[in-house]
Amino acid sequence: MAKKKKTPSESFVSMTELVLPNDTNTLNNLMGGRLMHWMDIVSAISAQKHSNRIVVTASVDNISFKHPIRLGNVVTLKARVTRAFNSSMEVRIDVDAEDIPANQKVESNSAYFTFVAVDQSGRPIDVPEIEPENELEKEYYNGALRRRQLRLILAGRMKPSEANELKSLFDIKEV
Amino acid sequence: MAKKKKTPSESFVSMTELVLPNDTNTLNNLMGGRLMHWMDIVSAISAQKHSNRIVVTASVDNISFKHPIRLGNVVTLKARVTRAFNSSMEVRIDVDAEDIPANQKVESNSAYFTFVAVDQSGRPIDVPEIEPENELEKEYYNGALRRRQLRLILAGRMKPSEANELKSLFDIKEV
Amino acid sequence: MAKKKKTPSESFVSMTELVLPNDTNTLNNLMGGRLMHWMDIVSAISAQKHSNRIVVTASVDNISFKHPIRLGNVVTLKARVTRAFNSSMEVRIDVDAEDIPANQKVESNSAYFTFVAVDQSGRPIDVPEIEPENELEKEYYNGALRRRQLRLILAGRMKPSEANELKSLFDIKEV
Amino acid sequence: MAKKKKTPSESFVSMTELVLPNDTNTLNNLMGGRLMHWMDIVSAISAQKHSNRIVVTASVDNISFKHPIRLGNVVTLKARVTRAFNSSMEVRIDVDAEDIPANQKVESNSAYFTFVAVDQSGRPIDVPEIEPENELEKEYYNGALRRRQLRLILAGRMKPSEANELKSLFDIKEV
Amino acid sequence: MAKKKKTPSESFVSMTELVLPNDTNTLNNLMGGRLMHWMDIVSAISAQKHSNRIVVTASVDNISFKHPIRLGNVVTLKARVTRAFNSSMEVRIDVDAEDIPANQKVESNSAYFTFVAVDQSGRPIDVPEIEPENELEKEYYNGALRRRQLRLILAGRMKPSEANELKSLFDIKEV
Amino acid sequence: MAKKKKTPSESFVSMTELVLPNDTNTLNNLMGGRLMHWMDIVSAISAQKHSNRIVVTASVDNISFKHPIRLGNVVTLKARVTRAFNSSMEVRIDVDAEDIPANQKVESNSAYFTFVAVDQSGRPIDVPEIEPENELEKEYYNGALRRRQLRLILAGRMKPSEANELKSLFDIKEV
Repeated sequence: MAKKKKTPSESFVSMTELVLPNDTNTLNNLMGGRLMHWMDIVSAISAQKHSNRIVVTASVDNISFKHPIRLGNVVTLKARVTRAFNSSMEVRIDVDAEDIPANQKVESNSAYFTFVAVDQSGRPIDVPEIEPENELEKEYYNGALRRRQLRLILAGRMKPSEANELKSLFDIKEV
Repeated sequence: MAKKKKTPSESFVSMTELVLPNDTNTLNNLMGGRLMHWMDIVSAISAQKHSNRIVVTASVDNISFKHPIRLGNVVTLKARVTRAFNSSMEVRIDVDAEDIPANQKVESNSAYFTFVAVDQSGRPIDVPEIEPENELEKEYYNGALRRRQLRLILAGRMKPSEANELKSLFDIKEV
Repeated sequence: MAKKKKTPSESFVSMTELVLPNDTNTLNNLMGGRLMHWMDIVSAISAQKHSNRIVVTASVDNISFKHPIRLGNVVTLKARVTRAFNSSMEVRIDVDAEDIPANQKVESNSAYFTFVAVDQSGRPIDVPEIEPENELEKEYYNGALRRRQLRLILAGRMKPSEANELKSLFDIKEV
Repeated sequence: MAKKKKTPSESFVSMTELVLPNDTNTLNNLMGGRLMHWMDIVSAISAQKHSNRIVVTASVDNISFKHPIRLGNVVTLKARVTRAFNSSMEVRIDVDAEDIPANQKVESNSAYFTFVAVDQSGRPIDVPEIEPENELEKEYYNGALRRRQLRLILAGRMKPSEANELKSLFDIKEV
Repeated sequence: MAKKKKTPSESFVSMTELVLPNDTNTLNNLMGGRLMHWMDIVSAISAQKHSNRIVVTASVDNISFKHPIRLGNVVTLKARVTRAFNSSMEVRIDVDAEDIPANQKVESNSAYFTFVAVDQSGRPIDVPEIEPENELEKEYYNGALRRRQLRLILAGRMKPSEANELKSLFDIKEV
Repeated sequence: MAKKKKTPSESFVSMTELVLPNDTNTLNNLMGGRLMHWMDIVSAISAQKHSNRIVVTASVDNISFKHPIRLGNVVTLKARVTRAFNSSMEVRIDVDAEDIPANQKVESNSAYFTFVAVDQSGRPIDVPEIEPENELEKEYYNGALRRRQLRLILAGRMKPSEANELKSLFDIKEV
């Protein structure tokens, strides 16, 4: 029996956090590890909503931190599933930080986390596929294949020569 | 000069929390105090967005907790400013809890927190007025006056006989 | 068999907290939500002592926050059961804050939380009645009925016209 | 000018803590380190009350943990200054743990922490002396000298032969 | 003036954490976000030791989580700087988890975090170079260039055609 | 059957902590209670490694705190078992604190914690003996007997006249 497909918006989750003293380093900037902790929670909830299952973090893609987020800033994290592969789901997280009294956006960032849906004994279990609904969702859906190949290569589980999708990222012409 | 009015949706904030072991009592139910802590943070951020000021909690209206929220549930808190009175803002918070693997909403609740906008030395400072845009927002806007009178009476700062709006709540006919 | 009555002083609990950086907002003032979290814990312990049962928070009455409590202040919360109704108990919490090095009391506040005693499966279970011993305890005991009617009306579970005790609060003469 | 003496009861502080999941080890027993953390906070507040100064922990005497305190237990810590020596204060902490639903005291313990009062630059500053008021307070007051000698010997700052008071502890007859 | 070179072992840091209830999900497994939080702290300290500067997290490389780490496990994180580029440092973190009562290693993992050394105003500042001392350190040192190119490409700051070192990872022959 | 002996280095554990705002008092110095909490965790892990058992804190010896440890400092705690007595183990913890940007060690301290190994029902269970390997380990091993006698006397479980080893500490000649 074919599993019902679901849209990215069905797994949309928005989380808001206030940067408190213990979240910051000696420069009063949010520590990267705290931000990743929040990213993990919001994206795990998103993967849960998509799969209606317990989920475990399988991997995190390269994240870069550009501008410092300050003590007292409000951080908004928005997550949605971009694509599912059997039991695994890629979740995109978009992060914004605001200094609200100064009426200023201070950071804009994004990241990809991958989760596996498991049953009560921790065994992987299949999840619904994703049906993208608009241009942006389609772009994320298509890119997911390329990012997955990079993950598999970096984990030593795929040969680069087999990563056809990834080649477009590296703009490499087959000769 | 008249201050620009703002709509409730401009101060809308959504926050999502996962119920962790330390948030629960010995029955594995979320403790009321932790939920109120989250309510305070989400509504403070909402009041900040409306006023672009630092805000302090002035009061909390009667809250009742109906159904237990469980360990592992996902709690969503949605806040928006319903009405402003000079430097004070009433914020309505709507709370939902879900057992996502069971695909079940387990709680639905609401509360009103009031905040005062202050400057850097902690002195109250005026905020924009609220312009409600739809029927629900108008209902909250109108009810705000009644709730404010109840707050003032309970704080001993208004005589019940002056609380014209409140009388409708108690369905009391003037004779 | 009649259940043994207990006095308010048998459920007396005193709790002391030091305001740490993570408890404060950007003005270095204690956040209202953290204070409510402490209020919930101290009053839950008080209700536990009265009932010798697991208890769950049922409701919180209107609380107003008057003066800011500062980083480094010592907060003392004193709780005792004022009255019991079947399985529910009203607890009064008195809060003081002190800047000890400055030898200065900085805040004085009070609140009412209501708890329900439950058995291991979470079902309500009757608790001992309260026997007030002095004038102050009698005043709290008598007021409890009025506050209960207000709670029931606000929760839509009592008609204002039936709230005989509450009318005294509103100073309303029946015609 | 002679500094005003203060009584132990003027520095009395009572603190109540609920044992939460993160406070416990894999046997669901309170970890010793968490209990010592609470002991440090309650006794620091007591030393603050005696001295109206900022205080820093100088030393902790031998503590033994006899019976396990369990998840969900209520821990009550009572602290008071037993004696002052120039800028340092010895504080005695008495700890009780209760399983309230079972109506059972599960632990009774005591410890001595020593604090030094300091000014804003961290320099030691004299504090009022202690005037014991009853037999128990006198016993603690007298024992303080003996405990202080043991501390100084263990820190290598006193020769055992000079520790006249301590000898009584070891029941040693001078020959 | 040439800056003194430092060895990876000069920046070695070992951190041990006990998995507590609040670090785990509903399967009692350590959440990935908490592990990344610990990775960030240990690697930040390592980068601080190398540079004797305040450091900020610049980026995190792809991390994959293979086996669940359980409640009560002991997690050991070992960090050291592998290579420095002007003001930035790549830190390698090796993670082990043990179920000590069962005498069983349960997980082995590694990750790369990149930090930038900054002065008190947050401006980047140069750090000592790394001098690898043994075969393993040389391997990490050489791989750092390749990983850096991948980071720059993923951040859109380098063209894949310029990433000469990276090509070896993808095993791509230039034609 | 004789139990296999183990060396102190087999139970060696190193833990690193960054002093965050919530760990500090109003002078921005690490609170003694937080340091003891860390000492308890690192030494419990060490005792676990020696015994491959669940362990509970039995006692803590006199600790003195000499120099303040500051916000932002890095604290390194190193623990190893010095000697075992049936089911109990003495663990020595050495603490260092560093202000890394200032390249300055700011504190050096040590403490002894005693743990008891227990089975799943919490009953004491024998552990391997310790075989010291170098001069320092032998010194700690020999001193352990003396410290144990002091603990037993302070707990009222040994008469001072029986504490032959302890007498050397007090430099007391038997007459």
